[in-house]
Amino acid sequence: MIRDISGFSNPLVKRLRSLREKKHRKREGLFLAEGLRILIEARDVSVLPDILVISDDARPHPLAEELIEETLAAGGDVIRTGVEILSKITAKDNPQAVVGVYRDCPTALSAVDRHSAPIWFVAQAMRDPGNLGTLMRIGDAVGAGGVILIDDCVDPFSVETVRASMGALFTQAIVPTDWTKFLGWLREGQGQLVGTSLNASVDYQEPHYTAPTFLLIGNEARGLPPEYEEACDVRVKIPMLGRADSLNASVAAAVMAYEVVNQSKARGSQGE
Amino acid sequence: MIRDISGFSNPLVKRLRSLREKKHRKREGLFLAEGLRILIEARDVSVLPDILVISDDARPHPLAEELIEETLAAGGDVIRTGVEILSKITAKDNPQAVVGVYRDCPTALSAVDRHSAPIWFVAQAMRDPGNLGTLMRIGDAVGAGGVILIDDCVDPFSVETVRASMGALFTQAIVPTDWTKFLGWLREGQGQLVGTSLNASVDYQEPHYTAPTFLLIGNEARGLPPEYEEACDVRVKIPMLGRADSLNASVAAAVMAYEVVNQSKARGSQGE
Repeated sequence: MIRDISGFSNPLVKRLRSLREKKHRKREGLFLAEGLRILIEARDVSVLPDILVISDDARPHPLAEELIEETLAAGGDVIRTGVEILSKITAKDNPQAVVGVYRDCPTALSAVDRHSAPIWFVAQAMRDPGNLGTLMRIGDAVGAGGVILIDDCVDPFSVETVRASMGALFTQAIVPTDWTKFLGWLREGQGQLVGTSLNASVDYQEPHYTAPTFLLIGNEARGLPPEYEEACDVRVKIPMLGRADSLNASVAAAVMAYEVVNQSKARGSQGE
Repeated sequence: MIRDISGFSNPLVKRLRSLREKKHRKREGLFLAEGLRILIEARDVSVLPDILVISDDARPHPLAEELIEETLAAGGDVIRTGVEILSKITAKDNPQAVVGVYRDCPTALSAVDRHSAPIWFVAQAMRDPGNLGTLMRIGDAVGAGGVILIDDCVDPFSVETVRASMGALFTQAIVPTDWTKFLGWLREGQGQLVGTSLNASVDYQEPHYTAPTFLLIGNEARGLPPEYEEACDVRVKIPMLGRADSLNASVAAAVMAYEVVNQSKARGSQGE
């Protein structure tokens, strides 16, 4: 059903706006994604919003028309509203013309098929939503299966994370768990746990990475706790040639992940 | 001289706060850096603030004591003030206890010694301060010489850029110029211009990169303009194995830069 909403005090407007806060997202099991590009990414992997909010201002983009049609066909609601109310929902002066409300979709660790992808990211106490979203985007680029979240990570369904993921959130399994459960699960099957460490003496290009590779990314400020480093099958360092002693967490994850991809490609071309 | 300031309406407080805006930074030729870690990075490459602002709240950190001493010895001012005024200057509820005011330090293209480093970044219309700061941090990690800024890039001296650089701003030459001047300068000497492109058919690991390598990073949303791509000596693509068609700009820069570093290391170990 398409509904037009014009009142600021409309309960739905308040409810949508409340989804900017974690506690409301958790209670409702819903989250917001903003912008046509991200919503189309979701649609392209067959994820449609429960509620599609769309500006009544402009002539809708042909892709927005498609979204409206498909959301309605799937039983979702479409809300048409003014730019002021979109501003209120998105807390932005220049809001995106399209906002989607999605059912959150965490994956239980027990439901993860580790052999479904050659690489998995394991984020430990990642605090920056930009980093976590970027990690998802890298995961999509390298063909990873998803991001396993341990310790106190930022909410993977926050607006900022979803935005930084550029829609990759919808392509990656999001697996919130804890260290003990993760390690127990990991050791029940195949899987190489790889950590980067300032204390490691092995260059990241030296080891032979074997699928599935689990790349453990430590907290932005503190890195990995020592006992986590010790649990790794492989500890490596990315060379630092200047004064810096570390890279941004998601940047380091990308450098590591492309090394794994490149090794696998090189072995493939050697007929291994 | 150490001065204590307690009044919100103190002209210096207003002036420091105004440095959060580009026009005031430009007019004064000054910028802000926040936090002990970044100020110590600057000190370690012999850059001291003109003005050091420090919280009168807590017992200063031993490194902050060193900063106070060295700033005074170099003829700078030290301001002691309360957390409320630090909040006002930094526009944060929980301000860093140490803020430095630095003379901005752009490098003229004509003053760049291209042979002083094997890698240079060339950022084209980079709009996100987090990306630009991260690029500086990557530059430091890979031993790059600096970041050449062309077209309409975000201010390299904004508080957000400085923060994301984690102090690498002070280790990298910052070279604002434009495309025509850059290209003219580049072609007067040695230098391989390398661009990543979705249209390229060559994998980024295939070419032989030669120093000095200039890595051209396109705008976050639009990538490189076609004529910029055409001017590159080498056009490569980073493989995308999922649905994503691109990586975050600074992440792509890191993947490229480590390939250049790794090739150089491999050639070094072969005695080339």
